[in-house]
Amino acid sequence: MSQATGDIGLIGLAVMGQNLILNMNDKGFTVVCYNRTTSKVDHFLENEAKGTKIQGAHSVEELCAKLKRPRKIILLVKAGPAVDDFITQLTPHLEKGDIIIDGGNSHYPDSIRRTKELEAKGLLFVGSGVSGGEEGARYGPSLMPGGSPAAWPEIKPIFQAAAAQVQGEPCCDWVGETGSGHYVKMVHNGIEYGDMQLIAEAYDILKRGLGLHETEIAAIFEKWNKGVLDSFLIEITANILKFNDDDGEPMVTKILDQAGQKGTGKWTAIAALDSGTAVTLIGEAVFARCLSAIKAERTRASKVLSGPQREQFKGDKQQFIDDLEQALYASKIISYTQGFMLMRETAKELKWNLNYAGIARMWRGGCIIKSVFLGDITKAYEKNQRLESLLFDDFFIKAIHKAQPGWRRIVAQVNLWGIPTPAFSTALAFFDGYRSEVVAANVIQAQRDYFGAHTFRVMPGKENSRLRVSEDIHINWTGRGGNVSSSSYNA
Amino acid sequence: MSQATGDIGLIGLAVMGQNLILNMNDKGFTVVCYNRTTSKVDHFLENEAKGTKIQGAHSVEELCAKLKRPRKIILLVKAGPAVDDFITQLTPHLEKGDIIIDGGNSHYPDSIRRTKELEAKGLLFVGSGVSGGEEGARYGPSLMPGGSPAAWPEIKPIFQAAAAQVQGEPCCDWVGETGSGHYVKMVHNGIEYGDMQLIAEAYDILKRGLGLHETEIAAIFEKWNKGVLDSFLIEITANILKFNDDDGEPMVTKILDQAGQKGTGKWTAIAALDSGTAVTLIGEAVFARCLSAIKAERTRASKVLSGPQREQFKGDKQQFIDDLEQALYASKIISYTQGFMLMRETAKELKWNLNYAGIARMWRGGCIIKSVFLGDITKAYEKNQRLESLLFDDFFIKAIHKAQPGWRRIVAQVNLWGIPTPAFSTALAFFDGYRSEVVAANVIQAQRDYFGAHTFRVMPGKENSRLRVSEDIHINWTGRGGNVSSSSYNA
Repeated sequence: MSQATGDIGLIGLAVMGQNLILNMNDKGFTVVCYNRTTSKVDHFLENEAKGTKIQGAHSVEELCAKLKRPRKIILLVKAGPAVDDFITQLTPHLEKGDIIIDGGNSHYPDSIRRTKELEAKGLLFVGSGVSGGEEGARYGPSLMPGGSPAAWPEIKPIFQAAAAQVQGEPCCDWVGETGSGHYVKMVHNGIEYGDMQLIAEAYDILKRGLGLHETEIAAIFEKWNKGVLDSFLIEITANILKFNDDDGEPMVTKILDQAGQKGTGKWTAIAALDSGTAVTLIGEAVFARCLSAIKAERTRASKVLSGPQREQFKGDKQQFIDDLEQALYASKIISYTQGFMLMRETAKELKWNLNYAGIARMWRGGCIIKSVFLGDITKAYEKNQRLESLLFDDFFIKAIHKAQPGWRRIVAQVNLWGIPTPAFSTALAFFDGYRSEVVAANVIQAQRDYFGAHTFRVMPGKENSRLRVSEDIHINWTGRGGNVSSSSYNA
Repeated sequence: MSQATGDIGLIGLAVMGQNLILNMNDKGFTVVCYNRTTSKVDHFLENEAKGTKIQGAHSVEELCAKLKRPRKIILLVKAGPAVDDFITQLTPHLEKGDIIIDGGNSHYPDSIRRTKELEAKGLLFVGSGVSGGEEGARYGPSLMPGGSPAAWPEIKPIFQAAAAQVQGEPCCDWVGETGSGHYVKMVHNGIEYGDMQLIAEAYDILKRGLGLHETEIAAIFEKWNKGVLDSFLIEITANILKFNDDDGEPMVTKILDQAGQKGTGKWTAIAALDSGTAVTLIGEAVFARCLSAIKAERTRASKVLSGPQREQFKGDKQQFIDDLEQALYASKIISYTQGFMLMRETAKELKWNLNYAGIARMWRGGCIIKSVFLGDITKAYEKNQRLESLLFDDFFIKAIHKAQPGWRRIVAQVNLWGIPTPAFSTALAFFDGYRSEVVAANVIQAQRDYFGAHTFRVMPGKENSRLRVSEDIHINWTGRGGNVSSSSYNA
């Protein structure tokens, strides 16, 4: 084994893989690379990797032979069967304690399964979210590793060196057990959907509501980017809005308004439904993309459905813009609150010990949702690891109280104007529901008991001999039917 | 086979099964019943079924022997393995062309599978939605059968006789292929979630917004029940609100505000996400139940989060109540529009020929969402079987245009007041998005192309030599990075 000088192996030489290899090489690690089509290995070594310490392998066996123990091998291949296929190929060449890391966009149930399968063989598995795209991979991604806890001390020096750094801290920390790394990456992507939808709604309000030009809107976003909304997405949106086509028209006005999606936002919304967590903002963001996709139907609908009589805006424009900043900020607080609630519920269910402050810290840099805001979330969870939700943290309580009046004015106004803001609206509805000790679900429970004998519980403080605490109560509402509660009818 | 006098068999003698048997017996059919615990068969024959033509069987074999061919056997057992188990038990005793009908709350993918499996054996399968609860089963349910088309002529006389009748028409018609019967039942339940949430929001607005007492709210619902909102759920809500506990307090105020759910609403929302259809109202209704469920957290949150400064309502109360009726009506139009869009998309994907007018007709009576409104939907689809969506039908276009001003005033007002109305709000946002030829998804596409090289298409009318029609276009927004579009990074 004289040739075992590799610190880490990487399989998959698409752009993401190449960039991550070059990144790790820059940090002083010896990376051994392999690719199914081995000509890519040679081409990479002769070009991008020329003059580096990067080594190549022409077989999985050679790759494993070139790695120091415990071996660490990152897979950056297409999520799905290819991951299982490489795991199967690698396993015979690995020894107890070796580590396979899946850095692809795998769905977290697969990572849960793979962790169990490999641990049963004495190997270790890490499913790691990798965010930041090609540039992130090259110059510092956000890395979200979870899986076999014993793997973390082994990969930590490499991962934390390769990751983006914010104020001297790496955007990489241990997430938690089994599939939690990919789960957290999924939630990250869901939150990204939400952030993008909120920005799109703000743009729409400024354009259709105030009638501003893209250049003016860009200036507003640039100003916002110096305040509480300071973030990568606000920054690039300003750049996008300033980008003109050759004829001087803003490029953005020439882009078809049909948003694509690759599924991770949908996964997050489904995970929310499955866990019974009200992650409404991501849900609306995903549905907004669905609605955008039926452009032809919308175009036909626009011919037969008219909106409200629109009056010219007569109020104070600057006040309105400041209100909008607060509406965007408050909605963002709600979206992240919901995202962290989702992780909390899933962690409970799957018995993961999630590192919430670490998660926020990982997202502060190197990824699409990087922002100053995530620094504030990090602080909230550092102050109180057991924080019930962001809306119980003093900083965010103050922030949302301050934002509230403007937020409400914006939502009220755009609903009168007829500008669709599903994300702003659902955020406000969630806030008002969350801060309500009593909501109207008593009516729903009464209906369910009325038509299906589904029973209900008594409101605290309203108990009596007929309505007992902790009992499933059925009322014979009509005087007809039985007094028997139902367990079979489904509604 | 001298004893083969049974018109139809039924397995499963819980209340639903017993009631459906008595119902079919009333209509003149000879029903043979069987239950796994056979003492239930004897008990039923000696009690509820005494003096009827109903026959019993003490084995699956005996049941099959007592049925005329082609045999028709309804399963009313717990959804899941029990259904497959009975199918396995029945199959050896059945002959080509015999029909197994699953009337339980099965998930439609199971019904798709069972149709295929039984058809491969020369048997026919029907998955039928059965709605209306125990009373519906006894006196006329809504029946939604789908599966093997050859089964329909055989079961039609029995099903249409047993179903609820509205204006001389049965609330039962053939839905479509394979799992479509259970699919349509699932969407029905999702719509039911939406209707219930809308009513709960209206109650909340009248109570918290106008400060009305349950008795006053009941009177409003009774009045609404004579207009466009005329429906079972409005009717029972009025009854619920009038129902007082022994101390004279409205019972509804003593019911814990934590809504339960049995999963079909969630299934609908997940199906919507999977098909890429913006069924936002059902989504919000499901999430509202999730939020209601975290009562303890809401109670704690209510201590630290405050709402807006609330002023006494100074406007015209009757105008407000009329606006609210319109808001509820318009939101309901949106919810049903979305539900039918979902069925349309799924039918496209699974190659079902769905009978939309028939579906609306089936829901007009016998089920929880029965309403006059569904008569109008029936008419819309009878007029135009290929109607793109309800919002392209003249009746509904007029209705929503009429409702629009009041709807907007309500949503604006409650957002200023701080009363959560996720369903009203999302309905309005959907309407405004649906009637927008251009939405702000161009910004989202620009962002995706900026950070992930995801490419975009050009807006019609904006094409030029750089922005060509039907091409995936990538712009080098920053001057840095490559011009290569990405297919691997996921966002």
